[in-house]
Amino acid sequence: MNHFISDNVTGAHPAIMDAVVACNEGIAPSYGNDELTKTLNDAFSNLFETDVAVIPCTSGTAANALSLSLIAGPTNAICAHEHSHVYQDECNAPEFFTGGARVSPIHGADGKLDLGALSASFSRKGDYHAAQPSAATFSQATESGSVYSLAEIKKVAGICRANELKLHMDGARFSNAVVSLGCSAAEMTWKAGVDMLSFGATKNGCMAAEAIVLFDPSLADDAMYRAKRSGQLLSKMRFVTAQLLAFLDNDLWLDNARVANNAATSLAEGLSNKSCAQLASVPQANMLFVRLDVDAVAALEKAGLAGYVDAKGMMRLCTSWRTTESDIQAFLNCLT
Amino acid sequence: MNHFISDNVTGAHPAIMDAVVACNEGIAPSYGNDELTKTLNDAFSNLFETDVAVIPCTSGTAANALSLSLIAGPTNAICAHEHSHVYQDECNAPEFFTGGARVSPIHGADGKLDLGALSASFSRKGDYHAAQPSAATFSQATESGSVYSLAEIKKVAGICRANELKLHMDGARFSNAVVSLGCSAAEMTWKAGVDMLSFGATKNGCMAAEAIVLFDPSLADDAMYRAKRSGQLLSKMRFVTAQLLAFLDNDLWLDNARVANNAATSLAEGLSNKSCAQLASVPQANMLFVRLDVDAVAALEKAGLAGYVDAKGMMRLCTSWRTTESDIQAFLNCLT
Amino acid sequence: MNHFISDNVTGAHPAIMDAVVACNEGIAPSYGNDELTKTLNDAFSNLFETDVAVIPCTSGTAANALSLSLIAGPTNAICAHEHSHVYQDECNAPEFFTGGARVSPIHGADGKLDLGALSASFSRKGDYHAAQPSAATFSQATESGSVYSLAEIKKVAGICRANELKLHMDGARFSNAVVSLGCSAAEMTWKAGVDMLSFGATKNGCMAAEAIVLFDPSLADDAMYRAKRSGQLLSKMRFVTAQLLAFLDNDLWLDNARVANNAATSLAEGLSNKSCAQLASVPQANMLFVRLDVDAVAALEKAGLAGYVDAKGMMRLCTSWRTTESDIQAFLNCLT
Amino acid sequence: MNHFISDNVTGAHPAIMDAVVACNEGIAPSYGNDELTKTLNDAFSNLFETDVAVIPCTSGTAANALSLSLIAGPTNAICAHEHSHVYQDECNAPEFFTGGARVSPIHGADGKLDLGALSASFSRKGDYHAAQPSAATFSQATESGSVYSLAEIKKVAGICRANELKLHMDGARFSNAVVSLGCSAAEMTWKAGVDMLSFGATKNGCMAAEAIVLFDPSLADDAMYRAKRSGQLLSKMRFVTAQLLAFLDNDLWLDNARVANNAATSLAEGLSNKSCAQLASVPQANMLFVRLDVDAVAALEKAGLAGYVDAKGMMRLCTSWRTTESDIQAFLNCLT
Repeated sequence: MNHFISDNVTGAHPAIMDAVVACNEGIAPSYGNDELTKTLNDAFSNLFETDVAVIPCTSGTAANALSLSLIAGPTNAICAHEHSHVYQDECNAPEFFTGGARVSPIHGADGKLDLGALSASFSRKGDYHAAQPSAATFSQATESGSVYSLAEIKKVAGICRANELKLHMDGARFSNAVVSLGCSAAEMTWKAGVDMLSFGATKNGCMAAEAIVLFDPSLADDAMYRAKRSGQLLSKMRFVTAQLLAFLDNDLWLDNARVANNAATSLAEGLSNKSCAQLASVPQANMLFVRLDVDAVAALEKAGLAGYVDAKGMMRLCTSWRTTESDIQAFLNCLT
Repeated sequence: MNHFISDNVTGAHPAIMDAVVACNEGIAPSYGNDELTKTLNDAFSNLFETDVAVIPCTSGTAANALSLSLIAGPTNAICAHEHSHVYQDECNAPEFFTGGARVSPIHGADGKLDLGALSASFSRKGDYHAAQPSAATFSQATESGSVYSLAEIKKVAGICRANELKLHMDGARFSNAVVSLGCSAAEMTWKAGVDMLSFGATKNGCMAAEAIVLFDPSLADDAMYRAKRSGQLLSKMRFVTAQLLAFLDNDLWLDNARVANNAATSLAEGLSNKSCAQLASVPQANMLFVRLDVDAVAALEKAGLAGYVDAKGMMRLCTSWRTTESDIQAFLNCLT
Repeated sequence: MNHFISDNVTGAHPAIMDAVVACNEGIAPSYGNDELTKTLNDAFSNLFETDVAVIPCTSGTAANALSLSLIAGPTNAICAHEHSHVYQDECNAPEFFTGGARVSPIHGADGKLDLGALSASFSRKGDYHAAQPSAATFSQATESGSVYSLAEIKKVAGICRANELKLHMDGARFSNAVVSLGCSAAEMTWKAGVDMLSFGATKNGCMAAEAIVLFDPSLADDAMYRAKRSGQLLSKMRFVTAQLLAFLDNDLWLDNARVANNAATSLAEGLSNKSCAQLASVPQANMLFVRLDVDAVAALEKAGLAGYVDAKGMMRLCTSWRTTESDIQAFLNCLT
Repeated sequence: MNHFISDNVTGAHPAIMDAVVACNEGIAPSYGNDELTKTLNDAFSNLFETDVAVIPCTSGTAANALSLSLIAGPTNAICAHEHSHVYQDECNAPEFFTGGARVSPIHGADGKLDLGALSASFSRKGDYHAAQPSAATFSQATESGSVYSLAEIKKVAGICRANELKLHMDGARFSNAVVSLGCSAAEMTWKAGVDMLSFGATKNGCMAAEAIVLFDPSLADDAMYRAKRSGQLLSKMRFVTAQLLAFLDNDLWLDNARVANNAATSLAEGLSNKSCAQLASVPQANMLFVRLDVDAVAALEKAGLAGYVDAKGMMRLCTSWRTTESDIQAFLNCLT
């Protein structure tokens, strides 16, 4: 099986599964009124060192689109990187959840929003003929495998604040970015000017659990109605909550991300010794991009280990909390 | 804890949980491309004795609204019982998923669509000023605890077909209805004229698993894009699939429903011997409605065993696959 | 030709047409930046004796739906009479413009909202499973030909205010109602608690001109973007504005409505002398409902003068600013 | 007053106004059931030499967005030039009318779709994570003042057909393009592979009248419900129809466009003799772009004759059916 094609091919971490099994004891009020879910806001407030409101979701697409619907209405625009998951891979979910907001593609190197392009997208402020930008979203870590520095996040946030946009972080790989920067969850989010976060847990060890983290808890009420309306308010919510709590418990989220990031570094080092491979850059999180000779691609495909190859001929490789040194060696051994 | 307030307070049946744990072995392609999910259409086709396409969902609201979006566009109307979950309890999910279709409330005794009222709702066919009915939905079992007979379903379906409406069944309690009628899944659906089904599994023993069953598999492609767009296409889909397959396996779905239905019958019998209680009707599935004396309500509330009381003073009581004879006795013992 | 089938079969009043022709002189900035349109807010503020913002529209459906979109979001409900134009005759325009709000039908005699039913519709406040009412709309004059008294409007408005709903008035026949009550435009709207108004002009003498009147001018900005988005921001807006200004000029709107209302009274008097006719009630505005013998209906149909007959066998007859005494006599002469 | 800032600053051509006045005689059935509107399909079918269905609209934005909603659903993408009116100047109207389709920006020189970029936008066919292109739209004449040749249209249409996309033409300046190419309306549309057209009449001499022309008349029914739902089905439709019919009558549309195009040519010739001016290209329709010295811009602004200046410093100048030789001379006289 292909370990490197995505970080979502892994199953659930044993500790996550144990928590799910454990929470099955007895009966519990439905729709998030159970005792476990009632602790969710506190658990995340503790992690983020400030009062937050949490809306559990079962997919990252739902978490992103629902978040954006809180800060962009149907006559607004949402600034997003042209290669972002939000713009490329959610089949109009942002348009759906917002009731028709425009997602405006912003270019930028390394999967990061170009600050000049971001600013330029505000040039028609007050013009009734143009959707008004009210929100920006960026991925941390990015879909290009890079990680915004805290200073970079603050610059994006500063531009947003100056132009009255709210800032959303797509944290499908939040854990990997925190480990990469060696900072706190708070530092990488609200302390840097982020207004809301899709806190990803599925890729990094859960079954199906994401959390919208609202640094402005007053948005929670609107979010709850929208969660219900979009089918995200599960009757047996405790099974999602249990995953999220176990994910935070004992820093499992950080431990798992550390394994994944280290695996990416290790894989990159191995590739750097191969003449058939040309790394795009040093991986900062759990993803790397490499240009491979034709023979190398063929060998990987034969072994069922090839990653996606993009239009520019770069192969994407993902590592995960489950990647082992022997997985990496098996991969490298395919290459001469 | 209150066992009778809803059938969604129960957790997961052990066999479901075992299946979830079991499917966690190894890695698997994401977004439903795993080996387990590939068998889903076959498993349901086998159950329904015809080729069907299945779209897994994580909530009944999503399953209903996504289903309806396949058969009702934004200038259409959807005929639904005025007391149905679709009309009352989904916070505009049908309007959301369909892009603004009208849900037209239809009255009718026992939670069932009145055939005359249904027909009357088609009176403005071809009038550009009125949303055109293109779909009808009904719940089986109903939210009033009743069950449509096969003949009744055929009548509803006949009216729909004659007026070019597609017919959706909200089967949140599908299992309970099948057990109640003693018929096959096929007989209660496509053989009676039903076009699509929200096959409910969560209430009857799963964690979070519902299946849209399309008796016209050509709709599956549209449904998949809509599933993705609404955040229902899970990356680790196998965890939902595993629940659904285990639910079907060895007729667990029927066994569980039988327990629930029998518990309702047993509870009703017990109540019929209480002078403080007046049953609305003989329960047909796993729900019953009872009018209780003030003292009786107070006693139940004190014991934490009261069900919802509606505007007309009727208390709703649900039973489940987990309800035991001792649960029932504890309830009855509260009443003098 | 059938004069009585609707008040929108008439063309434009000569004074309106003259104004349209007159405003065609020279060139003018587009999209409402012309000198004429700049005076629109002042003209309506003068009429309503308070600062208002005006959004011109080309149809009543657009005016109603756009108005409602300012006060009801996609997880909200809008309370409307079950026989209202908004609920019956706009082919899901409210759902469309609001992004999926529910229009909740409220019953009530004479086309007026029943206060108890209105209040009952708020019973699920704070329940995430139910769309939350945020707006109510009522028609003045109503589609049943009745007119709310000022006291009645204040009662509706009081209930709305107490429950944090905004109140919209569908004034397709606003002029007729003002004439009927003999009050001022201010008294019938904001002084009675109305938050916004679809001020109808088309039926009463314009070609295609309606005005959304916002008693809270801070909503104008949102409304303008929504107007553009829905295709209501005309490039040559002056042609709509000219109609609205001429409509207000010299109280043309009141004069026209007086003709129409008097014609209805006159027609009703004539009908009250016919044994074949049974009036539903004394007309209060420019519409009346009458039950006619089969022969009478046939005679009218033969003469091309029959109005719409509803499901209960009542024929609706409308009068207009163009209805003459001879039109009325021609109608009555058909009846023996 | 500034004649050159846009072709929508002009009022209505006298013949259009005469037709509007003339159609005001007597009463007429509403909502397009009048005798005039009944001839609309025939008039346009005659013009286009094939059976077409026509939906009148009151703005170009409505015509474009409503058209696109017929061929792009909420999980689809619409390919449009990145500088097109549809993408830039309609404040999310396409997203609104389609229920959330993505408008995918396609680059290309001279305001025309680059064929390679268009083809590249189809690369994710069948991928549930990406909105599926189902429609393309292009402007004829373009917003850059250029005109697609018939061969160019056929190429775009060929690519669309090969990829199962429907092709919409935004003909806000349709007349100018037909005159420019010297071809027939049929040759420039369905004979070249265009599926539907927003036929613009407002800019070229009407008050507020656009026509959606459907070369597949079977779409008319869906279009009518959508027209009603969006407030485009006017009660007194004859006033729009009268404009459209007068516009076609005696080839007024062609005569007007010829005046406008010739004025652009004349203006360009005048500018080519000015050392302060550098034309972007020879105008093909009624728009031209010119780079002017700072002093020249200042002089025009002082005289109130400056056009819009874009981000690249090019001034846009529009001519119209009302532009006279003396208007042009007045403009040129401002420049030394």
